[in-house]
Amino acid sequence: MSTVNTILQAVKDGQLDPAAAEEQLRGKLFHDLGHSRVDHDRLDRNGAAEVIFGQGKTVDQLRDIMNSLSQHGQDILVSRLTEEKAEPLVKEFPGSVYHETARILTLQHTKPELTKTFICIACAGTSDVPVAEEARITAEFYGNSVKPIYDAGVAGLHRILAETEVLRQARVVIAVAGMEGALPSVVAGLVKAPVIAVPTSVGYGASFGGATALLAMLNSCASGLSVVNIDNGFGAGYLASMINKIA
Amino acid sequence: MSTVNTILQAVKDGQLDPAAAEEQLRGKLFHDLGHSRVDHDRLDRNGAAEVIFGQGKTVDQLRDIMNSLSQHGQDILVSRLTEEKAEPLVKEFPGSVYHETARILTLQHTKPELTKTFICIACAGTSDVPVAEEARITAEFYGNSVKPIYDAGVAGLHRILAETEVLRQARVVIAVAGMEGALPSVVAGLVKAPVIAVPTSVGYGASFGGATALLAMLNSCASGLSVVNIDNGFGAGYLASMINKIA
Amino acid sequence: MSTVNTILQAVKDGQLDPAAAEEQLRGKLFHDLGHSRVDHDRLDRNGAAEVIFGQGKTVDQLRDIMNSLSQHGQDILVSRLTEEKAEPLVKEFPGSVYHETARILTLQHTKPELTKTFICIACAGTSDVPVAEEARITAEFYGNSVKPIYDAGVAGLHRILAETEVLRQARVVIAVAGMEGALPSVVAGLVKAPVIAVPTSVGYGASFGGATALLAMLNSCASGLSVVNIDNGFGAGYLASMINKIA
Amino acid sequence: MSTVNTILQAVKDGQLDPAAAEEQLRGKLFHDLGHSRVDHDRLDRNGAAEVIFGQGKTVDQLRDIMNSLSQHGQDILVSRLTEEKAEPLVKEFPGSVYHETARILTLQHTKPELTKTFICIACAGTSDVPVAEEARITAEFYGNSVKPIYDAGVAGLHRILAETEVLRQARVVIAVAGMEGALPSVVAGLVKAPVIAVPTSVGYGASFGGATALLAMLNSCASGLSVVNIDNGFGAGYLASMINKIA
Amino acid sequence: MSTVNTILQAVKDGQLDPAAAEEQLRGKLFHDLGHSRVDHDRLDRNGAAEVIFGQGKTVDQLRDIMNSLSQHGQDILVSRLTEEKAEPLVKEFPGSVYHETARILTLQHTKPELTKTFICIACAGTSDVPVAEEARITAEFYGNSVKPIYDAGVAGLHRILAETEVLRQARVVIAVAGMEGALPSVVAGLVKAPVIAVPTSVGYGASFGGATALLAMLNSCASGLSVVNIDNGFGAGYLASMINKIA
Amino acid sequence: MSTVNTILQAVKDGQLDPAAAEEQLRGKLFHDLGHSRVDHDRLDRNGAAEVIFGQGKTVDQLRDIMNSLSQHGQDILVSRLTEEKAEPLVKEFPGSVYHETARILTLQHTKPELTKTFICIACAGTSDVPVAEEARITAEFYGNSVKPIYDAGVAGLHRILAETEVLRQARVVIAVAGMEGALPSVVAGLVKAPVIAVPTSVGYGASFGGATALLAMLNSCASGLSVVNIDNGFGAGYLASMINKIA
Amino acid sequence: MSTVNTILQAVKDGQLDPAAAEEQLRGKLFHDLGHSRVDHDRLDRNGAAEVIFGQGKTVDQLRDIMNSLSQHGQDILVSRLTEEKAEPLVKEFPGSVYHETARILTLQHTKPELTKTFICIACAGTSDVPVAEEARITAEFYGNSVKPIYDAGVAGLHRILAETEVLRQARVVIAVAGMEGALPSVVAGLVKAPVIAVPTSVGYGASFGGATALLAMLNSCASGLSVVNIDNGFGAGYLASMINKIA
Amino acid sequence: MSTVNTILQAVKDGQLDPAAAEEQLRGKLFHDLGHSRVDHDRLDRNGAAEVIFGQGKTVDQLRDIMNSLSQHGQDILVSRLTEEKAEPLVKEFPGSVYHETARILTLQHTKPELTKTFICIACAGTSDVPVAEEARITAEFYGNSVKPIYDAGVAGLHRILAETEVLRQARVVIAVAGMEGALPSVVAGLVKAPVIAVPTSVGYGASFGGATALLAMLNSCASGLSVVNIDNGFGAGYLASMINKIA
Repeated sequence: MSTVNTILQAVKDGQLDPAAAEEQLRGKLFHDLGHSRVDHDRLDRNGAAEVIFGQGKTVDQLRDIMNSLSQHGQDILVSRLTEEKAEPLVKEFPGSVYHETARILTLQHTKPELTKTFICIACAGTSDVPVAEEARITAEFYGNSVKPIYDAGVAGLHRILAETEVLRQARVVIAVAGMEGALPSVVAGLVKAPVIAVPTSVGYGASFGGATALLAMLNSCASGLSVVNIDNGFGAGYLASMINKIA
Repeated sequence: MSTVNTILQAVKDGQLDPAAAEEQLRGKLFHDLGHSRVDHDRLDRNGAAEVIFGQGKTVDQLRDIMNSLSQHGQDILVSRLTEEKAEPLVKEFPGSVYHETARILTLQHTKPELTKTFICIACAGTSDVPVAEEARITAEFYGNSVKPIYDAGVAGLHRILAETEVLRQARVVIAVAGMEGALPSVVAGLVKAPVIAVPTSVGYGASFGGATALLAMLNSCASGLSVVNIDNGFGAGYLASMINKIA
Repeated sequence: MSTVNTILQAVKDGQLDPAAAEEQLRGKLFHDLGHSRVDHDRLDRNGAAEVIFGQGKTVDQLRDIMNSLSQHGQDILVSRLTEEKAEPLVKEFPGSVYHETARILTLQHTKPELTKTFICIACAGTSDVPVAEEARITAEFYGNSVKPIYDAGVAGLHRILAETEVLRQARVVIAVAGMEGALPSVVAGLVKAPVIAVPTSVGYGASFGGATALLAMLNSCASGLSVVNIDNGFGAGYLASMINKIA
Repeated sequence: MSTVNTILQAVKDGQLDPAAAEEQLRGKLFHDLGHSRVDHDRLDRNGAAEVIFGQGKTVDQLRDIMNSLSQHGQDILVSRLTEEKAEPLVKEFPGSVYHETARILTLQHTKPELTKTFICIACAGTSDVPVAEEARITAEFYGNSVKPIYDAGVAGLHRILAETEVLRQARVVIAVAGMEGALPSVVAGLVKAPVIAVPTSVGYGASFGGATALLAMLNSCASGLSVVNIDNGFGAGYLASMINKIA
Repeated sequence: MSTVNTILQAVKDGQLDPAAAEEQLRGKLFHDLGHSRVDHDRLDRNGAAEVIFGQGKTVDQLRDIMNSLSQHGQDILVSRLTEEKAEPLVKEFPGSVYHETARILTLQHTKPELTKTFICIACAGTSDVPVAEEARITAEFYGNSVKPIYDAGVAGLHRILAETEVLRQARVVIAVAGMEGALPSVVAGLVKAPVIAVPTSVGYGASFGGATALLAMLNSCASGLSVVNIDNGFGAGYLASMINKIA
Repeated sequence: MSTVNTILQAVKDGQLDPAAAEEQLRGKLFHDLGHSRVDHDRLDRNGAAEVIFGQGKTVDQLRDIMNSLSQHGQDILVSRLTEEKAEPLVKEFPGSVYHETARILTLQHTKPELTKTFICIACAGTSDVPVAEEARITAEFYGNSVKPIYDAGVAGLHRILAETEVLRQARVVIAVAGMEGALPSVVAGLVKAPVIAVPTSVGYGASFGGATALLAMLNSCASGLSVVNIDNGFGAGYLASMINKIA
Repeated sequence: MSTVNTILQAVKDGQLDPAAAEEQLRGKLFHDLGHSRVDHDRLDRNGAAEVIFGQGKTVDQLRDIMNSLSQHGQDILVSRLTEEKAEPLVKEFPGSVYHETARILTLQHTKPELTKTFICIACAGTSDVPVAEEARITAEFYGNSVKPIYDAGVAGLHRILAETEVLRQARVVIAVAGMEGALPSVVAGLVKAPVIAVPTSVGYGASFGGATALLAMLNSCASGLSVVNIDNGFGAGYLASMINKIA
Repeated sequence: MSTVNTILQAVKDGQLDPAAAEEQLRGKLFHDLGHSRVDHDRLDRNGAAEVIFGQGKTVDQLRDIMNSLSQHGQDILVSRLTEEKAEPLVKEFPGSVYHETARILTLQHTKPELTKTFICIACAGTSDVPVAEEARITAEFYGNSVKPIYDAGVAGLHRILAETEVLRQARVVIAVAGMEGALPSVVAGLVKAPVIAVPTSVGYGASFGGATALLAMLNSCASGLSVVNIDNGFGAGYLASMINKIA
């Protein structure tokens, strides 16, 4: 938290009176828009700029937050954004891109250089692709190389076994599945890398909106596996990036 | 229950025969519209006029109930009212106001004087603002001063810690959050005032429509905290008013 | 229902008066012990004698039912029987055997000849063996050849893939698993035979007593698979016998 | 897996070098369309061509997969397909048929000869018919004779008892029911054949989208019964076909 | 509420001053033991003396309540009472009887004359008998004739169909079942009388302590059926008595 | 079952050969429309003609069933029927009436004479009225007198206490409530008659579509109360009629 | 936070170097016992010393924490403490008292003066008394006057209505109930004070360990009511104290 | 998979005939003990020897598996092992150690050198320590340095904020919490490292055995966080080791 520390040091050194310091600090730390407190300290603190959870926000609110981030020179990622809301924003923010399948809007000032190690993203069925893509776009936004293996569910094991080599070379694997959610267990049994399991809401009847896949993944008999929320491709991509970029 | 007591005393004193008294009492106590029994005794009994739960009622039913309350000179608050249903009612009842974000219609004959102590309403994310606003409009309807702190979730603690002073000066705090619902626990750990926790249905996947936030709040490790129903901003605002106005 | 039909024919032919016939029929069809109505018609109707669900019955009740079945010359199988209750019964019924791991008591007058085709019973972990054994003892009670593959969960795929040949030769497969319950999906993807999936209560935390495995199996992406109740090894063994003995 | 084995034998015999073999094998085993890995090995492995789960796939994706299967000369069945998506596909694929009630599209090069033994499909209410029809169309696609008994719920037992003869002649019975899901238990008590129970989402209130019927069927006191997912007519029809065609 | 009305009339007539009246009324209406407020008004109001829910009460508390009821000359029924707690009470209260299977203690000053119409109590399995007996003892305590049909589950329909005549003559039927809970639906389809369905906790795995049977009964496709809590034999017996005794 | 018995007697007396008898019997017992088996025996067996569950049936299916019932001279009640589906049917069936709030269509050849005893139907809130009306229309269809008390929830006890006299005169009470579902407990504590509790889906958040009200009613501390499915006004009205008409 | 502020001021004034200050602060703020970090700052911050959650802690851990608090001169309250664990602690800590029904151990250096306003604690049944007592002991520990009304459930309304006067005079009401949890709704409809609802695990079957009462209270149609966790008498007593002591 | 590859190469080179190779391979890959198939290939495949899930296994089975691993020179870790079962095993296997709080038995031939980077393990309350210790013992077994911060829940934020420096230096953080499970969200908001969230079953009432904490963690508003099963300290320790050892 270098910027913040500098201010604090100045207070300590008597170069800044507390009231003035407080105002500066607050502006550095967050920007209060009334409806939102944009977290400008996050890059320092967590190593990545704030991302915007698009669901449940109005276009006006999104515009305000994007402007606040832009003015601080930060890259922008809006997740879970419907096409309808994305349209006006893409027009207003030059350089922004809407990734339709992933439902993500990104705006980056410079393309990051891609990592040499890579993240492998496997998904069980064609219907799981949107969630896998949310993970992929997120991981690439943060500069990771990604290799996808889509529609490789356990009912036809050869489809995933054919890619054992790729899976074993990945530094971290994201395994996405709905229905019975068995893919992550099978994958974790094949590799030495951490596996991030993403349940999806794909299915019907007793899939209960993805709860079944979620529970199955939490009870995996394989080791080295952890789980994120149902359909949370963003969370998986973000965490995989953290692990892939460990120096 | 002064009015009712007067009637009863009259019966006791022989100034009123039971049959006549009964008719009077029934009219005082409630007004039977067939579909609804408007509770005119509530102001005496509970210290506040009946409020109308707007969901699931037709415009015709709402109009009947509002007329019945108006004729008794009572202030009116209709909660969970869609914009579509509000429109004709606002036109028909001069002086009524529809608060769009809060989904509340109010009609007050005289603005109440505001309390000197205040209620602090904090919410975790921008998407929780509608529920926080439902609490705010309700509290203000009953004459309370309110200070809002919106979008101050626990993933960026400095956003809520920056307001510790305000939180500690409040007589009662309402903490609104969806997703993992952690804000009320953190807030209750910082203050000496009662904290009313309001879970919201904001989230997706394993948030199960707010059930996760609800359960988390009920299991808070902090003391001095109680919980209302998911998205029940009205209930929180009403209860906070009760506590704030304790003399 | 040959015996019953004979009686009915006799009534039709006037050789038996209805009242007498009714008494005979009732005795043939079931034996009313007060607490239990032993179903002696079941062999005719369903192709197998009544089996006794041991759980929740007292030793006295079990003895009465076993005596009633014995007097009609039927073989006896008591499932879900604790060792404590089994002990006195084994002593009183010569020839009866208590299978400890499977928690089953059997009493057979003549050993049935074993089928040429066989049932394969696979289970995911060592802790699932009791349920697998309940299925095996049941299937063998009805005269089926059985080949077990125990502790072959999906986290080490080679343990089940090593047995692909055996799985493919089986006429029907029973796949038993707790935790995430993925084994049946993997097995069903490898074979042409029907797969009966048996979830077990093995696990902890979010396994919720086997509910997770049950849900996973119901949502299998593989075809040709159906599911029985949690820990219902008996049901799986019985159904597998039905299928294996189809002529 | 004859084709695959031939390739492997060639490698062993030195007639094919591993790299070339791998390429051949991959093409034989599945066809990678990017979004989907069409499983061309499934007919060899499971005795039936891959079927397409229509829900959650776009028309473009469905067309790609259908083309891939067509080029390998395989029959096609698309389940859970809305009328809206079916329309363009029926136009583009001559000979394809859309079964509206069952929500299935089929495309068969030659009609299979029907089996001599038959599958009986019973359903409890008129509202369960769509699921029963999904089972029927599936079973007939694989060449099975089917006899339906529709609207024969347990509240009017004579409606199902009137068909006892048909039920007893069937080689396997599919029993479909929503609400309390009692029909499969009653049917399984009447016959010697395996019963496949299919819960449906028919009902309201505490039917919880079919969960009640599902749970009831899993707890059946009758033997010889197993269960598939809620509304999974396809799964029941496929499994019944497997059992009916046992030689 | 004759006694109470007499007191009130006396107040009205000036024969009793309010303070004295209040004291009398309170003693008539309930007896405050500190831990319990024994409801002595219940016989007047509900037509039956208060019954004691034995679970969770200490022997000391039970003794106090029984003494209070005894002193008012009321008959006593304690439900859900363990054998261990019953033992000392049976010794202290001469004439009291402990019904072991039903877990009920009764103490009646005069045996009531039995009704001419009767209640039929059917249960699905031997393990359901304790709940059926709780209903029977309760119904007989209130003077009803009862005819039991035990162990007549739907997997062997002839066992219940054999009793169609008895079922049809009953004025009200209690149908008790665990597991899939199908018996009440079948029974309600056969009779013109009201059917009270009692789910039991008999079963394992996905029976979830009786929740499955409960849900099944609530979703019955038969009419004329209502449901009480899991294992609530007392409630069923009490309600059946109410209906059977309608004049 | 008089008609059926006549046929059977004729067979016994040799006046009818079995094959002819079977055909006659089947026609009497039910009418197989392919999609539906209309139960014409129900009036004999259950004392009331079959009613039609409108949900999930097409207009064509409803028309077929109504015609079948009409041809047998039976009165018709269709429940859970949307206005959209009702419109064409009302036009085609002269004399039929659609009750909009109750979502019921009725067609009666002669109005039944009303009972002298009556059913009291109380509901907790204005939003519960549609379910209460479903119960009322059903009860009146079967010839019962009904007295409604609407919007009398427990938060304003005087609204229900004001009607104690009416409640106590009723032969059976239906108590309808959503949210916390407390009304039936309070009512059952006031009366000697059976209380049928009907949970409704009115509420939001943790009301979980009526599950909360349902559970609360099942756990009532009051005796003489039983429960039907969420929103099942029909079931309550039908059962209340059964009890009210006990001679 | 006076002590802490003094230290900080000393740092600012140069009277204390940061390293020394840090050590002092940490000792003031919490005491790290390895297994526990005793929060000595809590009295300053929350207005009440830390309380000890007894469940899941060993006697050794409890002794360590109690010693740490004692050495700082703070009063001690241990909740959810079994009698077995309490015994040795009561012996070792002179002046400590174990409240058996409430399962609480307290140790107070001086008895607090009792408030003039009071808290009313009502419970629905005798079996709910332990939870009500946990609330009472807690409230009295913090110096509040308490008036209990025990066993006043809604099935006998007169038992609670008889205490309307007491309820209306209370500054805050705690309403404790298991089973259907209706008491808080009824109480909140009678008073102007805040009502804290405490669900208990009293009940069986579909009470699901108190979940039903919890859900019912969250859905109360009455206003001014909030809810704490199942059986959380401590939380209710603590919160009631906060509200009762508002100056 | 070096050993396996050597064998395969030998087959290819004609130095080993297939049948002999198969036997060798099977022995290398797993050891079939009848009840268990010990996975000797796991070290090669997953980078860590098989660990033994102690729950549900008999002492005899555990001894067999430990012997099999020992004979292959592999280190041994048995998780979820009761003290009772551990006792005989510790005696029989010299050098083995039973970690009582963590319920883990370990047997290591040489102590691994500890990593320079470290894993930080934070837990919310003293009652969560056993799960945190399970994670610590596991991580140390695999040679990781660990720094624990125990009893630092969010109700006293200063206890965790005091350790911000340690948290930020860790390469990966494990955050363990029961009740409302808020600690991982707060921690993830403070650090740049991946956070592994472990819900525990600590709590009561609506904690539902840890389900509440689990759901809260899955819905965290913080990024960089993933979740393992309730009480799964082993899984968290294993995964943290994988991440900490990334080169």
